[in-house]
Amino acid sequence: MKTRNLSLLLDLYELTMANGFFRKQPQKIGYFDLYFRKIPDKGGLVVYAGLAQVIRYLDELHFSASDIEYLRELHIFDNAFLEYLRDFRFECDVWSVEEGTPVFPNEPLLTVKGPLVQVQLLETMLLNIVNHESLIATKARRICMVARNRPVMEFGSRRAQGADAATYGARAAVIGGCSGTANVLSAKLFGLKPLGTMAHSWIQSFPSEQAAFEAWMEVYPHNCLLLVDTYDVLKSGVPNAIRIFKKLKKMGINDHLGVRIDSGDITVLTQQTRKMLDDAGFKDATITVSNALDEEVIQNVLEEGAAIDSFGVGEKLITAASDPVLSGVYKLVATQEDNVVTPKIKLSNTVEKTTIPGFKRLYRLYDAEGKSHGDLLCLDSEKVEKSSEIYNSDPNKTQHVRQLQAWHLKPLQVQIFKKGTLLYHVPETMEIQAFSKKRIAELPMACLRLKNPDIYDVYWTSQLKTLRQKMIEEYTY
Amino acid sequence: MKTRNLSLLLDLYELTMANGFFRKQPQKIGYFDLYFRKIPDKGGLVVYAGLAQVIRYLDELHFSASDIEYLRELHIFDNAFLEYLRDFRFECDVWSVEEGTPVFPNEPLLTVKGPLVQVQLLETMLLNIVNHESLIATKARRICMVARNRPVMEFGSRRAQGADAATYGARAAVIGGCSGTANVLSAKLFGLKPLGTMAHSWIQSFPSEQAAFEAWMEVYPHNCLLLVDTYDVLKSGVPNAIRIFKKLKKMGINDHLGVRIDSGDITVLTQQTRKMLDDAGFKDATITVSNALDEEVIQNVLEEGAAIDSFGVGEKLITAASDPVLSGVYKLVATQEDNVVTPKIKLSNTVEKTTIPGFKRLYRLYDAEGKSHGDLLCLDSEKVEKSSEIYNSDPNKTQHVRQLQAWHLKPLQVQIFKKGTLLYHVPETMEIQAFSKKRIAELPMACLRLKNPDIYDVYWTSQLKTLRQKMIEEYTY
Repeated sequence: MKTRNLSLLLDLYELTMANGFFRKQPQKIGYFDLYFRKIPDKGGLVVYAGLAQVIRYLDELHFSASDIEYLRELHIFDNAFLEYLRDFRFECDVWSVEEGTPVFPNEPLLTVKGPLVQVQLLETMLLNIVNHESLIATKARRICMVARNRPVMEFGSRRAQGADAATYGARAAVIGGCSGTANVLSAKLFGLKPLGTMAHSWIQSFPSEQAAFEAWMEVYPHNCLLLVDTYDVLKSGVPNAIRIFKKLKKMGINDHLGVRIDSGDITVLTQQTRKMLDDAGFKDATITVSNALDEEVIQNVLEEGAAIDSFGVGEKLITAASDPVLSGVYKLVATQEDNVVTPKIKLSNTVEKTTIPGFKRLYRLYDAEGKSHGDLLCLDSEKVEKSSEIYNSDPNKTQHVRQLQAWHLKPLQVQIFKKGTLLYHVPETMEIQAFSKKRIAELPMACLRLKNPDIYDVYWTSQLKTLRQKMIEEYTY
Repeated sequence: MKTRNLSLLLDLYELTMANGFFRKQPQKIGYFDLYFRKIPDKGGLVVYAGLAQVIRYLDELHFSASDIEYLRELHIFDNAFLEYLRDFRFECDVWSVEEGTPVFPNEPLLTVKGPLVQVQLLETMLLNIVNHESLIATKARRICMVARNRPVMEFGSRRAQGADAATYGARAAVIGGCSGTANVLSAKLFGLKPLGTMAHSWIQSFPSEQAAFEAWMEVYPHNCLLLVDTYDVLKSGVPNAIRIFKKLKKMGINDHLGVRIDSGDITVLTQQTRKMLDDAGFKDATITVSNALDEEVIQNVLEEGAAIDSFGVGEKLITAASDPVLSGVYKLVATQEDNVVTPKIKLSNTVEKTTIPGFKRLYRLYDAEGKSHGDLLCLDSEKVEKSSEIYNSDPNKTQHVRQLQAWHLKPLQVQIFKKGTLLYHVPETMEIQAFSKKRIAELPMACLRLKNPDIYDVYWTSQLKTLRQKMIEEYTY
């Protein structure tokens, strides 16, 4: 296997700009914010994920001799710049929200400060990682919520958009609440529970379904989750499974018995299967369903009274199929020269693409009971006081001005790198899942809803609001 | 950077089954077909892609000491099986359609023959690769078709679902017709054209747009594609760009002048920009647009008369956002013991999930003019004659029976591996693009349409049809 080097996984323009910065503004410092504008599926929150992979990428970033050679042959770049890349040493400051945190539009999830020539180069990969993992964690949260404490297993590797989508997607799905994954590589890398038993090919390869089940029982007497829909669920699969369960019972084995159904009408088939299993005395035998499930299907069949103990969710989760893009962006918000920080803005001809200028801080506002009531954005340079008036950043909200008074402020970003030195220790994936559940439980209930959730309040300080307004006016022609 | 080993990127059940096969049916040979059932976006064809990555995966497949150790600690597998994995040597036969070929539902794109214990292990990665790359190539074909000979550049890395989705997605996009990609790694790996110039951050980092353009011109006088929507396209961006173009003209430089617009109303802005550029004497300056484009938006703005020379297409292409899953499956179609081949079927409780049994061959039917009129599926064991009657596999087609007589048969699958030895040489990506265009041009026009395309005819022989019918009846309860 070849060594993998992702340092050239960037848009060409990061390099053409970096080369230009190197020549034209070599001393200038840039501040970039990574944020998104829109929550997928019109949901109420995004579950932030991907920081562990961001850290690894930044920590390993270097350009190989072959990368430099390739770039040289493009005849676009200055020699001095290529030599700079050859000796590249990451020296930026990075702040980030912690993985698993529920986050909202226009909040700086990740802030990077460093020489323009460096911060620019990071854009593509930071966005790629955060957009992908946050998208899948967010989707998983929706699916696990409607499954109401039934385990949801991530089964999507075969339909994922490439190997990384399968591997890091499974990690993100677990952050969002999945109990484990079928993807063994992901399980190995991230300490997850690998899950699964058999496919139709196992059944087909034997002369009969009964023979296939028998053979399975002999190999795995303590893990007899039998796939019952190869020929006919109710007429063949379940009766054959019950015969096996009876044999196991005689042998004194009663653990991990169950069936999986991968086609047909979930509600009808699971109800009848449940009855057959119960009637045969296997009330503890579980029923797992799979087959193009998502939050909508799961919600519907549970409302109809389907008898399901766990879900295997594949393509709709691993691709976030109903809305497969988190449109995170990475925007210059300030520059710095000789210790003077200058806020920057981008207007564009599309209003919602206008940026929030300045090097900023992000806080969550808690009441005395530990419930969160909104987030607050302010400039790094200002001092936020109890008496400060804060403004809802959503112009459509009626209660627009509030006082901080009652609330306790908790910073959401922590420092990850200081001048290129890693300061942060990434928790285990299962710890991130637990952290995420806790943070989500602090939010107003109305934000958690699948459809028409309430919009979570994001406030900004008077100073930030005024700065932005002034800069917009300055650039209005 | 760590070495990358994808051999554990498989669903756990591939391993539990393989372990079972190893114990229960160690000598049995399996035949698996990889195929899909449904064309994304209700389109008329899928562009097959991913074979190059499949080959690399199979050629490098091995289990490291750390993989074996991890599997051992799961306490699921027999020692003998783990030792088999430690010494794993790929020894299967593989046949595949060539990349770039337009393909249709239920056609075996890839057929694998080998010991059950081996063929089973390949399922997850073969599907992951082929599903992903074919999905993106198929989407790119749609987008490039409506762009009507204007170059379409792949710009989606930042919104791709992970690093592989960006890298192999860009390759697939080029197979489907894109002129190049912004992804430098993909360009390096696959000999593609890396494309791009500047982002808003370049403009913002300078005291003014004019200063930013000036600096760019000094660094890249021969590549002056200026981004004009940072503040206001028509009042600031385009007038500033024209000033630069005039300076370059004075210096005798007139090549690669152009502007890019990334927001606002494409039709209005490009028409007015075109007029301003023309009036200033820059009729050759190009206009590139980007901003959440897909085949629908491109078709609409071109119909409205937008003045566009090239497109940068991002998230909607790299995720195939409108329908982000190609649901390819990998199904056991036959087993073999002592040289006797036994066809296998899977029925399930969902009709369209019923498989096509047997080790099969796939042909394309050409007329004397080199136009293709359908494909033919038959059993490997049968001899297809000019006088053979063939049956449309779509029961809804009225002209159901045909004679082969008039048509010339071309096999679509070629042998890739023979007992684990690689026989096939993968063409360059740009060659695959050319091959694909040629193959698509041979199809009936009505199949190429974006909406409501005609369904391409897939026939099967009398023998295959009869075998399937008999096997379905055998398993009907």
